[in-house]
Amino acid sequence: MRLTIDQLNAADQATFTRLLDGVYEHSPWIAQQTWSRRPFATLAQLKHALAHTVRSAPLEEQIQLIRAHPELAGKAAIAGELTAESTHEQSRAGLTHCTPHEFERLQQLNSQYKDRFGWPFILAVRGPRGLGLSRQDIIETFAHRLRNHPDFERAECLRNIHRIAEIRLNDKFGQEPVEGQRVWDWAAELAQHTDVPPIEGEPFNLTVTYLTPAHQACARQLQNWMHECGFDEVRLDAVGNVVGVYHGLTADAPRLLTGSHYDTVRNGGRYDGRLGIFVPMACVRALHNRQQRLPFGIEVVGFAEEEGQRYSATFLGSSALVGDFNPDWLAQTDAQQISMKTAMQQAGLPAHLDAIAQEKRDPAHYLGFVEVHIEQGPILDSMDMPVGVVTSINGSSRYAIELEGMASHAGTTPMAQRHDAAAAAAELILYVEKRARQDEQSPHGPSVATVGMLQVPNGSINVIPGRCHLSLDLRAPIDTQRDALTRDVLSELEAICHRRGIQYQARHLLTAAAAPCSPRWQQRWADAVQRCGLPVQALPSGAGHDAMKLHQILPQGMLFVRGGNAGISHNPLETITADDAQLCVEAFQNLLDDLAHHP
Amino acid sequence: MRLTIDQLNAADQATFTRLLDGVYEHSPWIAQQTWSRRPFATLAQLKHALAHTVRSAPLEEQIQLIRAHPELAGKAAIAGELTAESTHEQSRAGLTHCTPHEFERLQQLNSQYKDRFGWPFILAVRGPRGLGLSRQDIIETFAHRLRNHPDFERAECLRNIHRIAEIRLNDKFGQEPVEGQRVWDWAAELAQHTDVPPIEGEPFNLTVTYLTPAHQACARQLQNWMHECGFDEVRLDAVGNVVGVYHGLTADAPRLLTGSHYDTVRNGGRYDGRLGIFVPMACVRALHNRQQRLPFGIEVVGFAEEEGQRYSATFLGSSALVGDFNPDWLAQTDAQQISMKTAMQQAGLPAHLDAIAQEKRDPAHYLGFVEVHIEQGPILDSMDMPVGVVTSINGSSRYAIELEGMASHAGTTPMAQRHDAAAAAAELILYVEKRARQDEQSPHGPSVATVGMLQVPNGSINVIPGRCHLSLDLRAPIDTQRDALTRDVLSELEAICHRRGIQYQARHLLTAAAAPCSPRWQQRWADAVQRCGLPVQALPSGAGHDAMKLHQILPQGMLFVRGGNAGISHNPLETITADDAQLCVEAFQNLLDDLAHHP
Repeated sequence: MRLTIDQLNAADQATFTRLLDGVYEHSPWIAQQTWSRRPFATLAQLKHALAHTVRSAPLEEQIQLIRAHPELAGKAAIAGELTAESTHEQSRAGLTHCTPHEFERLQQLNSQYKDRFGWPFILAVRGPRGLGLSRQDIIETFAHRLRNHPDFERAECLRNIHRIAEIRLNDKFGQEPVEGQRVWDWAAELAQHTDVPPIEGEPFNLTVTYLTPAHQACARQLQNWMHECGFDEVRLDAVGNVVGVYHGLTADAPRLLTGSHYDTVRNGGRYDGRLGIFVPMACVRALHNRQQRLPFGIEVVGFAEEEGQRYSATFLGSSALVGDFNPDWLAQTDAQQISMKTAMQQAGLPAHLDAIAQEKRDPAHYLGFVEVHIEQGPILDSMDMPVGVVTSINGSSRYAIELEGMASHAGTTPMAQRHDAAAAAAELILYVEKRARQDEQSPHGPSVATVGMLQVPNGSINVIPGRCHLSLDLRAPIDTQRDALTRDVLSELEAICHRRGIQYQARHLLTAAAAPCSPRWQQRWADAVQRCGLPVQALPSGAGHDAMKLHQILPQGMLFVRGGNAGISHNPLETITADDAQLCVEAFQNLLDDLAHHP
Repeated sequence: MRLTIDQLNAADQATFTRLLDGVYEHSPWIAQQTWSRRPFATLAQLKHALAHTVRSAPLEEQIQLIRAHPELAGKAAIAGELTAESTHEQSRAGLTHCTPHEFERLQQLNSQYKDRFGWPFILAVRGPRGLGLSRQDIIETFAHRLRNHPDFERAECLRNIHRIAEIRLNDKFGQEPVEGQRVWDWAAELAQHTDVPPIEGEPFNLTVTYLTPAHQACARQLQNWMHECGFDEVRLDAVGNVVGVYHGLTADAPRLLTGSHYDTVRNGGRYDGRLGIFVPMACVRALHNRQQRLPFGIEVVGFAEEEGQRYSATFLGSSALVGDFNPDWLAQTDAQQISMKTAMQQAGLPAHLDAIAQEKRDPAHYLGFVEVHIEQGPILDSMDMPVGVVTSINGSSRYAIELEGMASHAGTTPMAQRHDAAAAAAELILYVEKRARQDEQSPHGPSVATVGMLQVPNGSINVIPGRCHLSLDLRAPIDTQRDALTRDVLSELEAICHRRGIQYQARHLLTAAAAPCSPRWQQRWADAVQRCGLPVQALPSGAGHDAMKLHQILPQGMLFVRGGNAGISHNPLETITADDAQLCVEAFQNLLDDLAHHP
């Protein structure tokens, strides 16, 4: 008997609690307290409500929930109780078949973990796809999480508990996130192509840079899938973008433009960019299967280049669409001295500016640009929010700062006679932090400010730093807020250096304009998310995206999906669940639906 | 007609001022205000009193004094007025014979200097020895000082004005610092020997490391000079120390032990260590010339090794004298894989432990150990004090600290969710600074604390620092003060890391015990300085010295002499004046005299 939302909505508290028995390990209070939040429109809403109950509980009850899971101790535990999932779940992960070496390692990790945190290690071993993690994955995650800060690791355990609950609820409801799994599987399959040949014993390195063989293989694969999904037109454009069009009621109907990039950083993640191609592909596939046409066409672009890895030509793909392709790029050479023009020719592209110029889109033919992207940050993950609506792509400014004080003997120079360049840097770092936090409640969204590079060149333990180099990266949702931040930081730098007798140079590296998302498209994404049964979490994008380029010619709006592992990105640990991918597809479908009815 | 101190002491204010006319450029107020401080016992006291008058004047009057010097503008100025010294002084420096290129460079520097500071560049062109700087020296100093902080450069101008006044007073009084010049010349001559062959166009690089040919040449030179000075016994000991003994009334009279090291750091200065050999050599020379014997012998040791450059065997020379030679040192190899034992054999030393053990001194035969040393710090220079009495050689502790936070995207991670390792380091750096300043008024003397090495490994401009490495060097005049400082810093480190969710490792590298100077020997040095007419400036030694080793078996006391260029050391810019060297010799003579009369 499959459970339904209607059953739950109609149940009294005791029945409700009984129906959800076993979803949260030995902790019926979670279902009990969630009962009052009925009715639930969707399973996603129920999941979110349960997680919200745990979030709102006192810290002791949260730790109690973690402790309700049995500790990994002894072979029996490894076989059955590592993650408090059922033996069925465990056996899928193969934990019943540990080698003696694996068993020993797990025992060791478990003992270290217990010493460090005092609660059992919780891991959703069925993993983000629901198919189960390998024993090697489990051991690596265990080792990795041992190094977390206790506050963070406690939250990570709760997130794993929610994921275990999600999988159990999917089972109870007989709901598989089929569209999400399809997206997840596409991502896995596309990630087979990499510039870096896999090396036995080395971790897999996903690197796909502009127009390499792996990059071209990705483009072919995307085109094949688009054909399979039922796109009406599929082509590789003049710069290597993969463009698929699903016509509206007529072939010349206005179009919704969407997509993201398929290149990656070196040793990157498989969702960054690509998710924004797969999600609308899944929607077109469903439309095609239903033989449904909308009043508007859908044009999905897999941008060939966004990351600027092989050449310094960031946003190359989307630049071509807005008529902003820099002619100088063609002459740029890569590390092997291959010019971009040559690389294009070798890839069978026209490699001349006229052809590229023709890729420029006429805004009059488009409704707007939307992009789905992994958040690449920790906000949604830390809030137990699967998706969020982007308010703005932050503007940024960057500086390289060199401080020059006076190098002198650490033993003989009195504190009051020092001109310590590192101490001046330290003051600036703390000011930068404090000043950015002042914008936390800004109506436009918070600022962030980072000193990412910091070095005393040739420092010695017994020499007062005469020089210190540091970088400054300042971002805010609107340009005026970014400018105020920049002004304050530079003026504090001046004050610190004046006070400390330090000379400085602040070399300006970059100013990028903020790209506020169109209020209308933000609202459309918000409505789409609410129709999934989820609350709307608005957040700015700290990173740049193709939408930032398209912003030059079209109103744009973005949907973010949470990344696991605290949103880590540009990193092999980047991850999303099939359930969250499913919500992305559903939200995108809601958006299309809404557009069709309220153009 | 030579001026005398008696004349000045007897003069009324107007006469006094007239007699000192021209000593300070167009600023008779300095002499006028110094008149009330008569009588002066020595010329050194008069010089100090004049400098003190300038120090006590309001800032505007100090700047007025600087501005009273004509600006460098036009060829005439270069010929005659660059430093407001007389044309006679200028011509000694050869400034009347500039090449067109040099002239142009000076014009350019002068214009930059004026723009930056707003007052004329002042340089005592007759230099530390009184013989005159070369045009190249002048241009280099000009360029170097252009980069100073204005506050520091203002003080540096005043110090040059005092130096010009000193030379003019020497001329007026007909007093040449003959002993100081001899010491200065010995230092210059010994600095001809270096491990690094001079390269055309490269600055001279003074590097003398243990038992190299240059090092052995230094030892031979020192022995020759000791013979010439009239030492009764001169020998190279088992580790390469040069030992000279000037007998007391009898050959077996107890001895005063003194000396310092003749090795250098790489690209070091010519006074560091060596001054402490030359000053007592000059005293013995004078005693011998007067055929004078004291109730005690004088044993001067030129220590072969203190800096630990070729081998990691710091204080090797003095270690042999206290029976603390580490037997493992013999097996150490240098960068060319030459063991210390082999190096010793090649230098004709016995190279076995028995011979080395015999160098151990019996404390019963010695009155104590005294050492004259360049300060290697800015204190005396900044106070216009030629010499100072050391209260203690600071104890130290050192740590290497590694912070581990969480590397994440600088654009997407909210300020409140960061675990920024560099920000934690910044907090620690500022705490270290603040905490050390709390000890400024400690009755035992101030502490110093330095973060000299600082680095975010592989930092990126757009990544929050996940790691940060830094060093910690903590020093205090007594061990308990150092320990309290260390404890507070480490406990703040713990608190910062706890608050910020950062993991850390603090690896202990070193703890060195403080060596407080014997109160009796401090008093003897203080008396000796006072007999020169100078006030007594007590200060701790931040750097380690051979006296620190001798401290293990004998009471010890040290005299510091100011270093020019803000006391810079371990650097070719290390410098002292012949006049200050003269005061060292006189103070040492006073000390011997005092010891002879009050043993």
